[in-house]
Amino acid sequence: MYGVILAGGSGTRFWPLSREAYPKQLLKIFDDQTLIQATLSRITSLIPANQIYIVTNLQQKEQIRFQIAPNLGVHFITEPAGRNTAVAIGLAAVALSKEDPDGVMAVLSADHFIQNKQAFTDLLLLGKTVAQKGYLVTIGEKPTCPETAYGYIQRGKPLTSCSGAFSVQRFIEKPNLLSAEAFLKSTDFLWNTGIFIWKTSVILESLGRFMPELLRGLLKIDKERGTACEKTVLEEVYAKLPSISIDYGVLEKSDRLAVIPAAMGWKDVGSWSALDEVVPGDDDGNIIKGNVVNVGCKNSIVYAHKRVVAAVGLTDMVVVDTEDSTLICPKTEAQEVKRVVEILKDRGEESYRVHRTVIRPWGAYTVLEEGDGGT
Amino acid sequence: MYGVILAGGSGTRFWPLSREAYPKQLLKIFDDQTLIQATLSRITSLIPANQIYIVTNLQQKEQIRFQIAPNLGVHFITEPAGRNTAVAIGLAAVALSKEDPDGVMAVLSADHFIQNKQAFTDLLLLGKTVAQKGYLVTIGEKPTCPETAYGYIQRGKPLTSCSGAFSVQRFIEKPNLLSAEAFLKSTDFLWNTGIFIWKTSVILESLGRFMPELLRGLLKIDKERGTACEKTVLEEVYAKLPSISIDYGVLEKSDRLAVIPAAMGWKDVGSWSALDEVVPGDDDGNIIKGNVVNVGCKNSIVYAHKRVVAAVGLTDMVVVDTEDSTLICPKTEAQEVKRVVEILKDRGEESYRVHRTVIRPWGAYTVLEEGDGGT
Repeated sequence: MYGVILAGGSGTRFWPLSREAYPKQLLKIFDDQTLIQATLSRITSLIPANQIYIVTNLQQKEQIRFQIAPNLGVHFITEPAGRNTAVAIGLAAVALSKEDPDGVMAVLSADHFIQNKQAFTDLLLLGKTVAQKGYLVTIGEKPTCPETAYGYIQRGKPLTSCSGAFSVQRFIEKPNLLSAEAFLKSTDFLWNTGIFIWKTSVILESLGRFMPELLRGLLKIDKERGTACEKTVLEEVYAKLPSISIDYGVLEKSDRLAVIPAAMGWKDVGSWSALDEVVPGDDDGNIIKGNVVNVGCKNSIVYAHKRVVAAVGLTDMVVVDTEDSTLICPKTEAQEVKRVVEILKDRGEESYRVHRTVIRPWGAYTVLEEGDGGT
Repeated sequence: MYGVILAGGSGTRFWPLSREAYPKQLLKIFDDQTLIQATLSRITSLIPANQIYIVTNLQQKEQIRFQIAPNLGVHFITEPAGRNTAVAIGLAAVALSKEDPDGVMAVLSADHFIQNKQAFTDLLLLGKTVAQKGYLVTIGEKPTCPETAYGYIQRGKPLTSCSGAFSVQRFIEKPNLLSAEAFLKSTDFLWNTGIFIWKTSVILESLGRFMPELLRGLLKIDKERGTACEKTVLEEVYAKLPSISIDYGVLEKSDRLAVIPAAMGWKDVGSWSALDEVVPGDDDGNIIKGNVVNVGCKNSIVYAHKRVVAAVGLTDMVVVDTEDSTLICPKTEAQEVKRVVEILKDRGEESYRVHRTVIRPWGAYTVLEEGDGGT
């Protein structure tokens, strides 16, 4: 099996901890590993490092290399620009097809939270079996709450040839609360985790059928690999490629779909306010890290570092302090953090939006700093 | 007339902008002058600089000198420890009595807000006239709201000999809201501003009558002034002096009291939440300074400096950011800021409690930094 890790991300939702050059997967938001480190450590028992491909951009590649031990032997596929999942997956599939055209590839996101590592690896192995029969396999997490921030998959009948897998009835975009509550009551609806398993040949065939222009572009890029024109062609072709998700571009149209229901404690933590779904709080429901003076806060998230953050009498608030910026918002307003990033962009305050003021030496980093897994 | 400015303060209520070494009077909280600068500029048209005495401690003296132009010729009286107003005023009175035993001294606080400078100087002149007749004159501001953070003075009958002045019926400590509302309706109750005017000889006589031990201590200190024992005696005596306010120790017992009602826009802004009484807000009721990204805040105070402070969807909140510390609290909890300072003291984090990380050069300071009036 091959692993394809999609590691893009714009770094807006967890600002000011995340930045354009330091999106979520490069941060230790949930525990003492960065999310890309955790993603890798979940699969290295199953997939050898030299069969792992990380799709990312040039800006983030060096920090990822740094975090995951540069000599591990993991491959990198760098995109000149973010073009959504259909392009990123297609690019990896074209590269893999030359190594092992009939190999199975597991597509993973670099910034997801998965509680149960064993359940996850069991699912990958089951997914591999189903994929080898020619299916495009999706993993669907059983809902534990009426989540409106995720897409859903409605499963169909069990696949007679593959125990544990089901046909797919339909994909459903982020629902409203009423629908999400109905989905939760039924056992037919699953969260679309964005984890996919399929044979390289099968996804390339599907791309050729449903997105032929895209596949042609990718093959053109591949043809120039290693030549003097590589960079020019890559950028030229990329500028014209459609920014479409693999779900929308291929999966929703395919008749070779399977879904495997999972209960592995999967979450795609999309904002600061969702942090308490995965990080346990104290007796007052607070998640507090760093040099915080807490005077009577409740159900609040306070992330500090070395500076003193005095949080007095806060309820349901988010406070995130970094070396150069501080965010304060009620949990209910956490979606508006992207507005802050837009405003900083308008103001031309790139240093606060793109980079982080890095405090050296790396060894002195706390759990809130960029990872030091590579040292 | 002589001016005695009481400039002590522990720097807890406006933390993190104020620190033990940088209390309120050294900060530009309300406008582009620090409060001690504003206090001085209110009286220099009336009192020559060499007749002004600032009572402070060693820790704050240098910063005050720096802020008020070192060559101005103002005198300093330094206390080895804070011992409340009776001692500070007594110490100044003893010093003044040698210059001009029958002179009139106006006692002022260094950290009050006064809107109407002309009304204030008019009051001082009226107060001088009344004081010259032997009265201990207090200034009582006409209440504009049912304030529970101030003490009150109930005025008695008009003094027949002094137009504009009244006898004093009684002093009232900080009232509850019900009483304060009743006081507001009556015209007899005035805010005790802590501004006093009296002849040096009269206050010394009163101290000798109501606090004879204190006066003896002060005279003992004065006797050693200029000798080798000065510092030792000062510290020894101070350690034993009572920490009592002039109101409680002398004024409440005296029969030579007068009060002059004032309407000069006086406030003793006691906490961050009271800031909007003296600083005008924007259309949404916000008071915002420094590098703030404001996304939909209302009735909130956000003080920043160079670091980015992103305030998203805040209502009735206080956020104060300095180089090394940040405070976040609802306005209703602003009194609890002193708890933060206590906790920092317990933790031994003196740098955050006592000093401020000063960004040099001084010239680069904004209105939120320590004053640069002396340069």
